Amino acid sequence: MPRALALLPLLALASAPALAGPPPKPWRSSAEVIAAAPAADWREPAPENLLVMELPQGRVLIELAPRFAPRHVANIRTLARAAYWDGLAVLRVQDNYVAQWGDPEAEKNPSGAKPLPPGLSKPGIEFAVPFKGLPLQALPDRDGWAPVQGFVDGFPMAADPKRNQAWLSHCYGMVGAGRDMAVDSSNGAELYAMIAPARGLDLNVPLVGRVLQGIELLSSLPRGGAALGFYEKPEQRTPITRVRLAADLPEAERPRVEVLRTDSPSWTALLQARRWREGWFVHSHGHVDLCSVSVPVRERGR
Amino acid sequence: MPRALALLPLLALASAPALAGPPPKPWRSSAEVIAAAPAADWREPAPENLLVMELPQGRVLIELAPRFAPRHVANIRTLARAAYWDGLAVLRVQDNYVAQWGDPEAEKNPSGAKPLPPGLSKPGIEFAVPFKGLPLQALPDRDGWAPVQGFVDGFPMAADPKRNQAWLSHCYGMVGAGRDMAVDSSNGAELYAMIAPARGLDLNVPLVGRVLQGIELLSSLPRGGAALGFYEKPEQRTPITRVRLAADLPEAERPRVEVLRTDSPSWTALLQARRWREGWFVHSHGHVDLCSVSVPVRERGR
Repeated sequence: MPRALALLPLLALASAPALAGPPPKPWRSSAEVIAAAPAADWREPAPENLLVMELPQGRVLIELAPRFAPRHVANIRTLARAAYWDGLAVLRVQDNYVAQWGDPEAEKNPSGAKPLPPGLSKPGIEFAVPFKGLPLQALPDRDGWAPVQGFVDGFPMAADPKRNQAWLSHCYGMVGAGRDMAVDSSNGAELYAMIAPARGLDLNVPLVGRVLQGIELLSSLPRGGAALGFYEKPEQRTPITRVRLAADLPEAERPRVEVLRTDSPSWTALLQARRWREGWFVHSHGHVDLCSVSVPVRERGR
Repeated sequence: MPRALALLPLLALASAPALAGPPPKPWRSSAEVIAAAPAADWREPAPENLLVMELPQGRVLIELAPRFAPRHVANIRTLARAAYWDGLAVLRVQDNYVAQWGDPEAEKNPSGAKPLPPGLSKPGIEFAVPFKGLPLQALPDRDGWAPVQGFVDGFPMAADPKRNQAWLSHCYGMVGAGRDMAVDSSNGAELYAMIAPARGLDLNVPLVGRVLQGIELLSSLPRGGAALGFYEKPEQRTPITRVRLAADLPEAERPRVEVLRTDSPSWTALLQARRWREGWFVHSHGHVDLCSVSVPVRERGR
């Protein structure tokens, strides 16, 4: 019955757990779920995957995603170890889109640009990875952006199983490596953070991680007045004090954070708490979308 | 055949135009579509629907939506005419959520609050309107938030035809009337603008309009450090210089803006330009979501 087979993905939509109706009460709030999450449901990001960016406004903490963009992540580690970003700047803040940082001279005046450190590779295209074998926590909630979506290692991602492709998604706080017109021109030296979701960017540019803390320092920067949100005057840029890997900081200076495991029962419960809400809420949609729930982060030892 | 009938909405998903594959080339860019839009595809918002809020940072222009929240909009007009908001403040900016303004004393110290002007009604609940008869430009693109979505009068909205309900959606830049725990406690004196999409708020609080210009002035404000993004100290708040209806301003002071009609061919073309992208983009999703395309606004006479 080929016709019945063709309908299968559509029937799956109707039977998705998120659409199955409200769970038995009492419904827990997100705050209650997070407060009740046992120690085993939290993880410490590896220090070699933690990028610590210091701005005059405060600290931005980024977790890198080597599973999805290993060659870009290797470059980013090399750049941080070489103190490449120290003294460079946030060049571009485009409202409802991105904040981007790197060398202001890189494009307009390459001869005046800061030299890239030795050991940097040309990483090529890292937009997607094979879907098969990924430890995906799939969302039953459906949308029109991709056939499958969910979380891996705490990062939001989407996938097309038929093409055996999976990719990180441009949700709020995700960090990517800027590229020029050439599809393989990113190298990790210019990075951006999403200050809005923009899933249309997926599969067009490599995502390399997620801001765990401090995204509000980037999203509240003044927007640039030139095209694409670039600043018109150099003094409008935000200078970068220092960027290091946590692994390269003295123990006392390392950020002490934990991230809720997206393969834990608490994460599943948190998604339900976002689908079904009480208290101030009088209507629940029984639905979340990939970018509407961010993975909780807390200070370690809380 | 009840079974076949039950499948109809799902089959509609498969046959939605947006999923029908790429249109013939050349594909136009969003900028090209907007530049080519004829005069007939633009409209001037009525001055009695234009709220002009002046902050030290600049002007925020809001178009009111009387079709969806007529009693709240009537109150907002009354409040503007009484200069109610002049000297009040932006009290709350919660990252990735909302910026909210009104009287800082209203909740904590009602006896010290600014008196509401005479003529204000208790508007009751205005979360939804009847779906039947709405001049909806439906999006063929599907998502999990509602059975139907699209645009009416330039505002993003969703609907459930079976329940004959339609409601404005909490996309970036939408403006709503804050309420307390009581479901009918909003009156329009405390307003908020979305600085991120949050469709889970739909049907929980009345939306009253959309920011046409100046949302970046609100979204780039420092985030408040107290719970829900309220500012901890009064001096951290952004004072409101003046809020007026354009209809009450002298002709020379009225904003001169036009909004692309969402019932125009240019809007349909713009949606296609966002689904199918060339140039820097190497992958197109053939999809938009309700909150991912904002309705263009330009200075009048361009």
